[in-house]
Formats: sequence, C-alpha cells, structure tokens
Amino acid sequence: MTRVARLAIIGAGPSGLAVLRAFETARRKGATIPDIVCFEKQETWGGLWNYTWRTGLDEFGEPVHGSMYRYLWSNGPKECLEFADYSFEEHFGRPIPSYPPRAVLHDYIAGRVEKSGVKPYVRFRTPVRHVAYDAARQRFALTVADLLRDETRCEEFDAVVVANGHFSVPNVPSFPGIESFPGRVLHSHDFRSADEFAGKTVLIVGSSYSAEDIGVQCFKYGASGIVFSYRTRPMGFDWPEGFEERPLVTEIAGNQVTFKDSSRREVDAIVLCTGYRHSYPFLPDQLRLKTDNRLYPLGLYKGVIWQDNPKIAYVGMQDQYYTFNMFDAQAWFVRDVLLGRIALPPHADRQADIAAWRAREEAVGDPLQAIDFQTDYVRDLLQATDYPALDVDRVAELFKEWEHHKEAGILTYRDRSYRSTLTGTMAPRHHTDWMDAMDDSLEAFMAVREAAE
Amino acid sequence: MTRVARLAIIGAGPSGLAVLRAFETARRKGATIPDIVCFEKQETWGGLWNYTWRTGLDEFGEPVHGSMYRYLWSNGPKECLEFADYSFEEHFGRPIPSYPPRAVLHDYIAGRVEKSGVKPYVRFRTPVRHVAYDAARQRFALTVADLLRDETRCEEFDAVVVANGHFSVPNVPSFPGIESFPGRVLHSHDFRSADEFAGKTVLIVGSSYSAEDIGVQCFKYGASGIVFSYRTRPMGFDWPEGFEERPLVTEIAGNQVTFKDSSRREVDAIVLCTGYRHSYPFLPDQLRLKTDNRLYPLGLYKGVIWQDNPKIAYVGMQDQYYTFNMFDAQAWFVRDVLLGRIALPPHADRQADIAAWRAREEAVGDPLQAIDFQTDYVRDLLQATDYPALDVDRVAELFKEWEHHKEAGILTYRDRSYRSTLTGTMAPRHHTDWMDAMDDSLEAFMAVREAAE
Repeated sequence: MTRVARLAIIGAGPSGLAVLRAFETARRKGATIPDIVCFEKQETWGGLWNYTWRTGLDEFGEPVHGSMYRYLWSNGPKECLEFADYSFEEHFGRPIPSYPPRAVLHDYIAGRVEKSGVKPYVRFRTPVRHVAYDAARQRFALTVADLLRDETRCEEFDAVVVANGHFSVPNVPSFPGIESFPGRVLHSHDFRSADEFAGKTVLIVGSSYSAEDIGVQCFKYGASGIVFSYRTRPMGFDWPEGFEERPLVTEIAGNQVTFKDSSRREVDAIVLCTGYRHSYPFLPDQLRLKTDNRLYPLGLYKGVIWQDNPKIAYVGMQDQYYTFNMFDAQAWFVRDVLLGRIALPPHADRQADIAAWRAREEAVGDPLQAIDFQTDYVRDLLQATDYPALDVDRVAELFKEWEHHKEAGILTYRDRSYRSTLTGTMAPRHHTDWMDAMDDSLEAFMAVREAAE
Repeated sequence: MTRVARLAIIGAGPSGLAVLRAFETARRKGATIPDIVCFEKQETWGGLWNYTWRTGLDEFGEPVHGSMYRYLWSNGPKECLEFADYSFEEHFGRPIPSYPPRAVLHDYIAGRVEKSGVKPYVRFRTPVRHVAYDAARQRFALTVADLLRDETRCEEFDAVVVANGHFSVPNVPSFPGIESFPGRVLHSHDFRSADEFAGKTVLIVGSSYSAEDIGVQCFKYGASGIVFSYRTRPMGFDWPEGFEERPLVTEIAGNQVTFKDSSRREVDAIVLCTGYRHSYPFLPDQLRLKTDNRLYPLGLYKGVIWQDNPKIAYVGMQDQYYTFNMFDAQAWFVRDVLLGRIALPPHADRQADIAAWRAREEAVGDPLQAIDFQTDYVRDLLQATDYPALDVDRVAELFKEWEHHKEAGILTYRDRSYRSTLTGTMAPRHHTDWMDAMDDSLEAFMAVREAAE
C-alpha cells in the first residue's frame, strides 16, 4: 500500500476512538503515523454513550446520533467488553460490579482516550456531508460542515475510516392504522425516559435487545403492563406477571391492537424496537457498505477493509457480542494495514477469505454458536497485530454464562458478578438489586460494597 | 441569460409545485421550456401539507419533512391563499367555509397540480444530497439518492430552484435542567396528536403561530392547563380560563418549571414551539442562503434570484402572510427570468433593489405594516409576469380583518367567513363551531350547510 499521508476518521465514538488510540499507541512507540483528522458530529466524543434529551433533529438541524436512554445499564457483563490495554480496575482504581449504568461506561471509555491525549485529532460539531473519490489521484475529497461557524469545507485525504456506528438511524416499519393511534408512537431511537410510561400499558414491537430492555425498563419504572410483539419468535423468557408476548401486530384501530393470532389488546403507547439501519448517506455507491445487521457483512476483508478500495475501512459495523475490545482489535488491524505493516493478499484471496467467513456465519444456528463465531473472528484479528493479549476463550465463556443468567432471570441477571479476564478480580456485587436501583448516576453506582461476593 | 436546457427543482411542496405549474402553463401556451426534474424526498407531493405519523427519521433514515399535526385547521382564511388561477370554488364545485382542515387544503393543492399534468416531472423518494457548481462550465452537478433503489446518482443541470421549505428543520433551544424533566419534551415539528396530552398540564415554549395553535389544540382536546412561555412579549390574547402566559423558562427541576419572573409551575409535558431553521445542507456555501425567518432575506433579488449566481433561485423562503399565491407570483417571476423573458438588471442595480426592500422591511413595526409590506412585494412580482390578476389590496384587507378577528376571540375566529377575491362568493359558515368540530376529515368538513351566512 502506498503511504497514507493524511487519514480521515468519521466518528469519535468507541470505534473511531479505538482507531485514534491504535495510531497514537504506534506513534508513542516511535512509528511515523499519518496526519489524522477525526470528524465528529456531536459536541463531545463517546458516540452512543453520550446521553442527550434531544430526539429527532438537534440544535443544528442534524439527526440526533444518540439512542441512549435514561436508566440504561449495561445489558452484558463489563468483563466481556473490557479493553485489553485498560482495565476497569485501572480506570476506577478498584473493582466495580459487573453491570454498570451508562454514565460509568461512558466514564471508562472517555477516561482511556483522555489519558492517551488524542483529543487534538478530533474536530467536534463537524459532520461529513459528502465523500468523493478521485481514482486517478487516489485521493478522497471530504466535504464537511463546520456547524459552529456555519461553513462548509472540502479537504483531501489518502485514506478514510468509517466509524459512524450503525445503531443511530432507526428502522421504522409501519402498521395498518398506526397513523390514527391516539397515544404516543416512537422508535426506541427516540426513547428517553421510562417515567413517561408509568401507569400505562406499553406495546413494544420487536424481540431483540432494545425490546427486551425497554420493556423491562418501563416495567421497572411503573408501567402497568408490557405487551411484546414478535415477528418470528417470542423471546421466551420466564416473564413475571405484567409481561406478555404476542405475535406480530396486524392492525391498529384507536387504542386497540390486533395481533396475527387474532388476539386483541388495548394499549396506551407504542414503542417500535425494530432495530437500526446501516446509513452512510455521505458515501458514493462504490464505497458504500450495504448490509443488514449481521455478524459478517460482505465487502469487508477481515470485517474492516473495503474490498474494492483498501484505502477505505469500516470499523464496528458487525452485529455485536464483542464491542469495545472488538473495535480495538479491528482498529489495530486497520492501522497496521494503513501503515503498511500488514500486506494485503491479492483481491481474489481476500474475496475467498470473506466468502469463507460468510459461509461459516451462515451456518451459525444459535446464540452460543454466534458467540463462538465472533470469538474466532476477534482472535483472527488479534493474532495479526501487537494489540495486548486478550483471553477470548475466557470472554466467550463469560458471554455464555451471561446467556444462561438471562435465561435464569431476565429481571435479576444484572445482579450477577464475573471475573475480569485481565486482572483476575471477581467483581463485587452491587449494593442494591438492579430492580431496586432507581438512581443510575455514576455517584450512586460507585458506592459499592467493599467485599466481592 | 444563456439558455437553460435542464432545470432542477428541489422539492415538490407548494413552492416547487408552483414552479412546475408556472413552466407547464408557459409550455401549454407554446413556449419552449427546459427539461425539468423535480426532486422530492417524500413519497408524494404537497410538502408540509402531507400528514405523517412519523417523527424524527423516516423509513429510509431521512429526516421527516412533515411538521403537520392531526386536527390542524388553517389558521388564516383560505381566501388569503387562494391561487389566482384556480379558485376553491372551481376545485370543490361549490363554496366552502373559510377555515378548512389540513386534508381539505391538501386536496386543493394536489387537485390543481393533478389537473395540470406535471407529475411526470417529479422524482419521488429522491432527496438531493449534494450540489456542486462548475463555474467554468456553468453547470450544477446534483448528487441525488434514489431511496427505493438505494442508489446514488449524479446529474447535471443549467439551473436550480431551491424549494425545500423552511418549516421542516426545527430550532431547538435548551434550558437548564431539561435533560432530567421526567415527562415528554418535544419540538412542535414532532407534535402529532393533542390526544396524548389530555388531562395534562402542557408547557408551550414560544409565542408565535405554532405556540398559539398547539396550545389551543391541546386545550380543545382535553389538556387540563396550557402554560405559554414567551421570550420577548406575551401573545396577549384574551385567554379563557385554563391558559396562562409567563415569561421565559429559566430552570427546570423535576416537573417544576421556574420562569424569569421567579414564578413556578408544575407541568407534565413540554412542547418547544421555538420555530424553524433555514437548512440547505446539500448546498455549497457560495450558493447557500443563510437567514433567519423574515420577510426579506438578503441575497435574493426580488426575494427569489440568488444575487451572486442568477442560475439558482429560491422560492418560498420568506416569513409568510401570503403563502400559495405568493409562491405562484415568485414561481412565475423565476420562470420568466430563466426563460429569458425578464432581463435581469446589472448586479449593482439588483443589489440596490434588495437594499431598498430590506430597508423598508426593517421599518415594519407591527403585523398590519408587515401585511402591507408583503402585499407590495407580491404586487411587485405580479406586475412583471402574466400570472392571472390577483386583487392583493383586497387580500390585504382580509388579512387585517383576520388579525382583528383573532384579537376578538382566539377560540372563535375560525367560525368567521370571508368573501373570495376571485369569485366574489361569501364563504358559508361551517356546520359546527370550530371548538366543537373534533373530526378534521375532508368528509366531515364538506358536509357544509348550504346557505352562506
């Protein structure tokens, strides 16, 4: 690969920050790295992990990136997402419970990058409007908006890393009669506070993480009933009284909802937990990833390098069990490709590699196999770079324990503790059972009991 | 002006449709017109006059254009917005009351353009992503997204009319403590149904049309109290019990809102009726209008022709008393400039004309003067083209009557009737007082009493 003198990173969330951290780590070890500009639409970094009360369009008329809601706690053990080069224990100075609320995870992500001094690379409030690729000159021209100055600029780069996330642009289906439903209808992207639904019967359309968590949230904060509606199959947890699962909505008439089994139910509000869309409206078709949410999107060598133009890479675009540490593994790999440390195989060999992973992904039959698939994917990336050792087999075990704990109690699994694969420390139990922990602030959470369980 | 062979129109709302209608009218009279492509993001035409239950981002991840809510009735007499070439009486085949609901106005707008056969010019579901101007070749390159095919294309044009509206991208201020308000917070752009606020005390921030109308709506549909908050001055209507006006919000703590006069009030929901932003993120800076909502934005000769490049025009970008008929007057003027029928004066003369209008606008002291200003502006445009005669002096009188009627009764002014300036017919009174007319469908509305009042 010819030398990359200037690199653009689109997005300063966990994925974009992983890329910054990867290059900065190399620089500190004496490597020559490109001039880097990271373009971030939001006021600060942290991507989805920032909370905003805003919905729809923000104060500059830009689509709100945030899908984060008040009272969100991690829905997986923090031990599964720990950065291999920065443990929770290092950040907080002591062990903390396994399921932290949003503010705690945000503090952890931001803490690592604050310490690594990468902030000068980031231009905040600067969404990318348009990317054009000049094949003759092998240069990318990025048109970006400086929102604070209300100016548009164009800058050229030799390579681009796309890291704008894929849980920000909602997938919003319609249902017959929804246009005259008298209560509130919203997508989970716009869900902010469960308080608003206290005393109400809430229809939750969907059966994945958002549906499960928002349903449980609303119940925790006083909703009188939660009606889940699934397309393919129910979540099937051992739901306590107050929850019910029904098949897909077929019609809405006033407050009354009819389901595919002809059953009916009056509801007060509808939350569409119907997932997100990959959206890169700033990219031309020949550089644009088109995929649904899956473990192995096509077109990306090792899940990151754009097959038809390896000067553009995508980080974090997979369906995710692994998150922060997978973004790191991807970022270190992308860095080493762009620095010329990893030589790319010929196009046909890359294509064969993609096809092999995809074939294996298509054979995945259940969540435990999906965990194994992604574990192998992360392992494959890790062996190619100098990213610190991560015991992915142990992480995979934790993911499987977590799946069993959810089965055992959807309202109680967050009271469990797990052992850090990095420090070997068992997490202390939180001072309050999750269902009784109404305050999701960092301060309340950090008042941990001293003893591990 | 050199010949315009290809013309792009951005937007198929009332303004863009006016331009289509203007060109088509010329073509039917034998003129040679450019090849026209009108790019429309929505599924259908009518712009803001389409109702959608959607808020935030739509099914393609595009910002929802619609700001229209259920139960919206015209807040001005239809006699003030009547197209000079197509009366309400012609469309509906009989006289109808003066304040129609949304569906009736949409039917009227769509009816005119259906009859004029301009639909083939429009590409629906095709937002414009990026406009580049090549000064050497005097061509505009438009990058557009074909949402149904999920493809991006680039096409060249000789001229562009920007008609995407300016009541679609919300202006959303923040207030201390708003991030932890436990009820719903929304901008009027996302307001859809007053039903949701029945039994609630609703804080309405703002003192212009949206605030007034959404406050009244919520009251009509059962809100227990409406608290308006103004920045500069109260609306000052003779509000019935249940309404109050307070100065600007200074702080929000839980459900309690503090105002600038130190008074406090518990509220259940907050609607930010804080206006809209001019937003043209697809345009480069040198072609991009930057203005707040006002009667005479700078940079536009006769309010429409972009001063530094007359091959780009804006239609409908003024603060509006006049609406549909003003867009027509502007569209006919733009058409005649682009057809070379109107020769543009030199740059300096145009600049002087802009400055003179702007100076006069700045001297406007009250709504009645504003009506006179816009009346003269429309008259100035009309005298330059063959748009059918419109008695703007009579329209101005109607606007002033309307202002007085609002003063006389903010809940009852929609029960008034006015005489069409085109047909001379007095509008019949609606069969039901507006405050009792809960059904806003076209069918319910068209059940008019036969006799004029």
